[in-house]
Amino acid sequence: MSFNNESYDKTRLDEVVDKLVRGELKMHEADKVLGNSNAGALARRLALERMYGVSLSSIGSTILDFEELVGRNIENPIGAIQVPVGVVGPLRVEGEYAHGEYYVPLATTEGALVASINRGAKAITLSGGARTRVVRDGMARAPLFWTPSIVDAVKFVEWVRDNIEGIRRAAESTTRHGKLVEVQPFIAGNLVWLRMVYSTGDAMGMNMATIASDAAARYILENYPGKASLVALSGNMCTDKKATAVNILLGRGKTVIAEALIKRDVVLKVLKATPEDIDYVAKAKNLLGSAYAGALGGFNAHVANIIAAIFIATGQDVAQVVESSMAFTWTEIRGDGDLYISVTLPSLEVGTVGGGTRLPTQREALELLGVAGGGEPPGVNARKFAEIIAATVLAGELNLLAALAANELAQAHKRLGRGGVRQG
Amino acid sequence: MSFNNESYDKTRLDEVVDKLVRGELKMHEADKVLGNSNAGALARRLALERMYGVSLSSIGSTILDFEELVGRNIENPIGAIQVPVGVVGPLRVEGEYAHGEYYVPLATTEGALVASINRGAKAITLSGGARTRVVRDGMARAPLFWTPSIVDAVKFVEWVRDNIEGIRRAAESTTRHGKLVEVQPFIAGNLVWLRMVYSTGDAMGMNMATIASDAAARYILENYPGKASLVALSGNMCTDKKATAVNILLGRGKTVIAEALIKRDVVLKVLKATPEDIDYVAKAKNLLGSAYAGALGGFNAHVANIIAAIFIATGQDVAQVVESSMAFTWTEIRGDGDLYISVTLPSLEVGTVGGGTRLPTQREALELLGVAGGGEPPGVNARKFAEIIAATVLAGELNLLAALAANELAQAHKRLGRGGVRQG
Amino acid sequence: MSFNNESYDKTRLDEVVDKLVRGELKMHEADKVLGNSNAGALARRLALERMYGVSLSSIGSTILDFEELVGRNIENPIGAIQVPVGVVGPLRVEGEYAHGEYYVPLATTEGALVASINRGAKAITLSGGARTRVVRDGMARAPLFWTPSIVDAVKFVEWVRDNIEGIRRAAESTTRHGKLVEVQPFIAGNLVWLRMVYSTGDAMGMNMATIASDAAARYILENYPGKASLVALSGNMCTDKKATAVNILLGRGKTVIAEALIKRDVVLKVLKATPEDIDYVAKAKNLLGSAYAGALGGFNAHVANIIAAIFIATGQDVAQVVESSMAFTWTEIRGDGDLYISVTLPSLEVGTVGGGTRLPTQREALELLGVAGGGEPPGVNARKFAEIIAATVLAGELNLLAALAANELAQAHKRLGRGGVRQG
Amino acid sequence: MSFNNESYDKTRLDEVVDKLVRGELKMHEADKVLGNSNAGALARRLALERMYGVSLSSIGSTILDFEELVGRNIENPIGAIQVPVGVVGPLRVEGEYAHGEYYVPLATTEGALVASINRGAKAITLSGGARTRVVRDGMARAPLFWTPSIVDAVKFVEWVRDNIEGIRRAAESTTRHGKLVEVQPFIAGNLVWLRMVYSTGDAMGMNMATIASDAAARYILENYPGKASLVALSGNMCTDKKATAVNILLGRGKTVIAEALIKRDVVLKVLKATPEDIDYVAKAKNLLGSAYAGALGGFNAHVANIIAAIFIATGQDVAQVVESSMAFTWTEIRGDGDLYISVTLPSLEVGTVGGGTRLPTQREALELLGVAGGGEPPGVNARKFAEIIAATVLAGELNLLAALAANELAQAHKRLGRGGVRQG
Repeated sequence: MSFNNESYDKTRLDEVVDKLVRGELKMHEADKVLGNSNAGALARRLALERMYGVSLSSIGSTILDFEELVGRNIENPIGAIQVPVGVVGPLRVEGEYAHGEYYVPLATTEGALVASINRGAKAITLSGGARTRVVRDGMARAPLFWTPSIVDAVKFVEWVRDNIEGIRRAAESTTRHGKLVEVQPFIAGNLVWLRMVYSTGDAMGMNMATIASDAAARYILENYPGKASLVALSGNMCTDKKATAVNILLGRGKTVIAEALIKRDVVLKVLKATPEDIDYVAKAKNLLGSAYAGALGGFNAHVANIIAAIFIATGQDVAQVVESSMAFTWTEIRGDGDLYISVTLPSLEVGTVGGGTRLPTQREALELLGVAGGGEPPGVNARKFAEIIAATVLAGELNLLAALAANELAQAHKRLGRGGVRQG
Repeated sequence: MSFNNESYDKTRLDEVVDKLVRGELKMHEADKVLGNSNAGALARRLALERMYGVSLSSIGSTILDFEELVGRNIENPIGAIQVPVGVVGPLRVEGEYAHGEYYVPLATTEGALVASINRGAKAITLSGGARTRVVRDGMARAPLFWTPSIVDAVKFVEWVRDNIEGIRRAAESTTRHGKLVEVQPFIAGNLVWLRMVYSTGDAMGMNMATIASDAAARYILENYPGKASLVALSGNMCTDKKATAVNILLGRGKTVIAEALIKRDVVLKVLKATPEDIDYVAKAKNLLGSAYAGALGGFNAHVANIIAAIFIATGQDVAQVVESSMAFTWTEIRGDGDLYISVTLPSLEVGTVGGGTRLPTQREALELLGVAGGGEPPGVNARKFAEIIAATVLAGELNLLAALAANELAQAHKRLGRGGVRQG
Repeated sequence: MSFNNESYDKTRLDEVVDKLVRGELKMHEADKVLGNSNAGALARRLALERMYGVSLSSIGSTILDFEELVGRNIENPIGAIQVPVGVVGPLRVEGEYAHGEYYVPLATTEGALVASINRGAKAITLSGGARTRVVRDGMARAPLFWTPSIVDAVKFVEWVRDNIEGIRRAAESTTRHGKLVEVQPFIAGNLVWLRMVYSTGDAMGMNMATIASDAAARYILENYPGKASLVALSGNMCTDKKATAVNILLGRGKTVIAEALIKRDVVLKVLKATPEDIDYVAKAKNLLGSAYAGALGGFNAHVANIIAAIFIATGQDVAQVVESSMAFTWTEIRGDGDLYISVTLPSLEVGTVGGGTRLPTQREALELLGVAGGGEPPGVNARKFAEIIAATVLAGELNLLAALAANELAQAHKRLGRGGVRQG
Repeated sequence: MSFNNESYDKTRLDEVVDKLVRGELKMHEADKVLGNSNAGALARRLALERMYGVSLSSIGSTILDFEELVGRNIENPIGAIQVPVGVVGPLRVEGEYAHGEYYVPLATTEGALVASINRGAKAITLSGGARTRVVRDGMARAPLFWTPSIVDAVKFVEWVRDNIEGIRRAAESTTRHGKLVEVQPFIAGNLVWLRMVYSTGDAMGMNMATIASDAAARYILENYPGKASLVALSGNMCTDKKATAVNILLGRGKTVIAEALIKRDVVLKVLKATPEDIDYVAKAKNLLGSAYAGALGGFNAHVANIIAAIFIATGQDVAQVVESSMAFTWTEIRGDGDLYISVTLPSLEVGTVGGGTRLPTQREALELLGVAGGGEPPGVNARKFAEIIAATVLAGELNLLAALAANELAQAHKRLGRGGVRQG
């Protein structure tokens, strides 16, 4: 932090802290009064320490410069949370954008997570690496409009189709990299959602899509000759930060797939399980188990673990772990007893510019992967990043399925004292 | 970090870094070779910097002591990610466990999030605070068993019911605070899931539940006289880190509810919207919009934002944001035009001991809320924490709904030039 | 029909028809004016024929006696729809209640359906029959209550738990066979659903559960000392006639499972496909395909076809096909290359008394299965019926999966010119 | 039935019945041996009567001519099930295709259903009728293809896009009215679903789509230069006879909406409830209740009741009630206290030609609505039919919501002794 106690007028600080403690000053006012957000952070911290009789010194020990961050990434800061970051690798990825071996940074406090993904990465890399593809790419925002009746709703949607060029111009006037790719209309009675899908370059793009959709919505309301009003700029058809089928079926962010063909001997030696047992666990747990549990998109072993750890490490919007971790894990036994495994992520929302990606530690994590900042042409960095994430997810799935198959079946073997455990 | 460059044998370090770069040593071996995990972290960082031509100095600037963390919270560490943390408050909570005004720490990189929740908190506090209740509490793990046939599956479940005491003893022998509360059986054909629900004191309890369920499963396999084997210790009926209905209907972690009755004038003055408009947005967006989008559990505006930020700040398992953010937001207009709002979180998985809660910055965040460590009796801290989270979520929902209602309707007003925008 | 034109006062009839055509009499008034519901049906039919210039003579050619049916099963009748009924069998069932070979009546207009299920039945019967089990049984109705706040909601639920005996007495006072088995409370904010589960003997039991729940709700409202009101006697947590997870996880009607172990040579000769191909189709289509499509409960090939046809034939509530057809189909290859297949129906709502079961053709269909009317003890007929249905569903699944595997793979074989089509 | 006992060689019939009873002849062989399907039906019926000691005379009393039906609509017939049919009306519909007042035939055995819908129809008709619109129309079938890897899967989908004209020609060569409108590709790992959407004129079109998709799939497999095989002609992405999100979001059959604005005094007088109470029940039960229950598409009161009854009456594929009854019911209070209500059916699968529509009673039911057979241009009859169905569904929803609101709130009123029951 560029600001520190010594360099500051202690008396002035003490006064502000006193006022904060007595409630005469609001927490967010400290920055302005002290003329510096780092000072404001310190004042808030000291005030809270006094008010609640606690120490916040670790939170205060940070390299962050709040003069850079307040308003852009945080308000009312008091310091930083430090999350340990470990690396998984080398993980070989053979994608359309990512080629080579990577060390993937994972920020987590869950013991054994990094180690276990690492074993999966080893098996994949030994088998020639993970193949990856981004098969769909676009950020969506779906404003919700009210019309008087279904007759008007239909007219409204027709007008939008007929006036798509004006809407596009309005939307794109707000952004340099964003392009309005498609407007997907949904009608329920008198209500209309316009799900606007944008290409957003290397940005995750939610803010870009929101601002562009706001302009598009204004354009529509100003030009549509009929009666319509805007209920909400986001009508939950987008869908942001919730598990929904619309994100699975129409995508949001990147739809990315990773797969690997793991040699039978690698499965047996590295993963300590048979391909057949892994395949059975994958079907019974990930597919039937999740179906029975009433899952939406959660047909996998633990994809969210990997997504969350990478998202924290690289400054992504962590709340988007919800839909970004929806995934379908699939396995097949191939002719010679090898194990084919794939993981499909329909709605992986990631970026390499904007949001938390500019923070110092997060940016370094992206640089380690060679994807920090904007790519040329725009979008290639974010797609490369998506491919690396998918490959890491694949490593995590492979390993956990094997671990479950091996440990559990070991128990089963002991008890049943025979080779085939699941045969009647 | 207790370890630093100067205090260390630089030659030895250089050798290790060289070997890491050349691939002669594996990343995870550095700790052992150097005899210290902080040294190992440094070596890995230096090696990666050289291999990829990047700087990881910010990541390296951390207060974390990896001698304490490796194996418990992280492997292959290279440093820490610093996430800015801001406070929301004062937020008045009147729950069963939480009473008083709180400043809630939110770790996020999303600009405006803290400020917007803060406005919701203000409205709630001005209206007397949020009422909260924990209505269900239990951590679940569901091992999946194979039997030869439905006839055996039925016998197996009957045996489990008849032998629940032995199973309980086996499960509870592995834990001090955990209690096996219930076993919920699910049968599909020849397969059986035993969803084992535990009370876990102040721990989130997933590891506790996993270890206890492993012991329970062993006990079952060793004593059940029929034929059965364990397919996987987790059969996805638990359900961990996926959006599923079983967590909504039977709960996992805490089922917690927060509500507030916001005075009409507070709504108008603080939130700049009418209760009626907020109510309309809540129904059309959160309920109908999400239903149309094919949501599971995501019948709210942006609960995941708040959950993710608190989870990072307080050392929770961030991947569990997926199910912990499932929520139902509900509004009513009360007799005198006040706005009633509630948020119901069926599966909030949180703890105040174990996991990431012991890390220095995370622990301070818990201390700020007065919930760090184990409570007396065990469980009260975790429940208090759950109540505070629910109240914060309520603040976030209230504010975003109002913001959507106000901004958008403003546009609508301008266009339609009349008072009632949604009346035909 | 016991009534016919000749036996009736034609003049009076003509007058009534005239008035119906001119709108001077309402359709439902014809019965009363004519003093006979069969006459009323005739009058309505004649009036509609004249009004719309159509013939409804086929609809009028029915054996139904509307004097028996109006009010109990139909209003404003004009005759009957005739649905062709074919039989599948012999189908061997070895359940807890059903033993022996059955010919199952299916009422359908979909060509090839009966024939295709028949082939599945043949394969099952040749392999020793289908094993079946009813693992859960209970009809649910969930009244929805309003309370002022979460504090009241919690008190309300506690009061219900403490006063369960009074509630039970009130509920059971309305029914001879119904027993209140359990009350499952669900809270969302200030709202409370009480999901009341009943054993209903041989009746499907929805009306019984509704009437009993109405009495229970009245009892609660009259005796609960706090503030509460009833929003709706059915709050959709029941859940009737919709696909919901609560019915999957907690059951509604019968949870019934059927399975069979089909000898490899039977699969090859009768079903013309390999067990491996069938297993692959079952996993890729029924599990992964449905998961991707965003299915709820629909993890099967075509269960609804069989359920709908049996429901029409036997006088069940056909709208309940929606949840009664939710099913999980599962396959395994057993040690010697045989095919294991099971189908699990979590929410099969059927009865052998009440509703449409008393109609002449429907009752005969039930008699053909040996399950018409009430059993001794009550409930055994309905459970036997559920087992037979599940076995028929199993036959349908088995055959369609085989048909898909065989036809399609035949094409694949032709094209790829090699043995293993799905191996890389 | 054109065949009867008297006109037939009784000795020959007796022989066949004897053989059927002794198992020397299979049930389906009776038609061929006797040279007549009506004779076959009689023989089967007599055999079953003797085998099981039951009478099937009511089932045998039918007007159906099985010489016309066997193979097209039924196999192994033994007679017919007679379902009482009543009429709802007059129901005024003001749609794009349907104009005027209709009497809608409902075949059901559920007492009070017709009467209750009738009350809703009255309220709608008194308020000027239901407005309706078909906003999407297309039948889907989604063959599932296997490819070796994601790389091949992507190439496969690209090839399909580049060769869409050849695929279309192949598909359309099998049908007179069917047109391939769109191919929607979905990839999961190495697997590809091609969801082929067709316009199908006045037919429901599932068979048409299946046959056309088979031809399309063959064309693809014969011409695609890479490696691919067909796993199943239906991969459950279609989706037929299951509740899935893909049908909600992309449609299957007709997406049709009906709405009405019910005058406040009509609500009060005809429906005996207040618009406000109905609106509250609609939101708390249909939206929140269903969301909590984990519903997919079932955000309504009892749409399946109406769909099932019309489907049976008009010869639709009754198993498709599952997805055809997915619906969103929405209400609003309009400026002057009137009640706006809409129902949106995203996946209503209906036809007026083919399937069961040619059966005598079913055809008459369609004729009563003026929609029997093919329209000019093709498709108008099916769309008109869809509009009438949606309007009838609206009547059913309106009435049940009102009934729940009135009855229940009456209880509440009694207890609370004041006007506003849900105000705190």
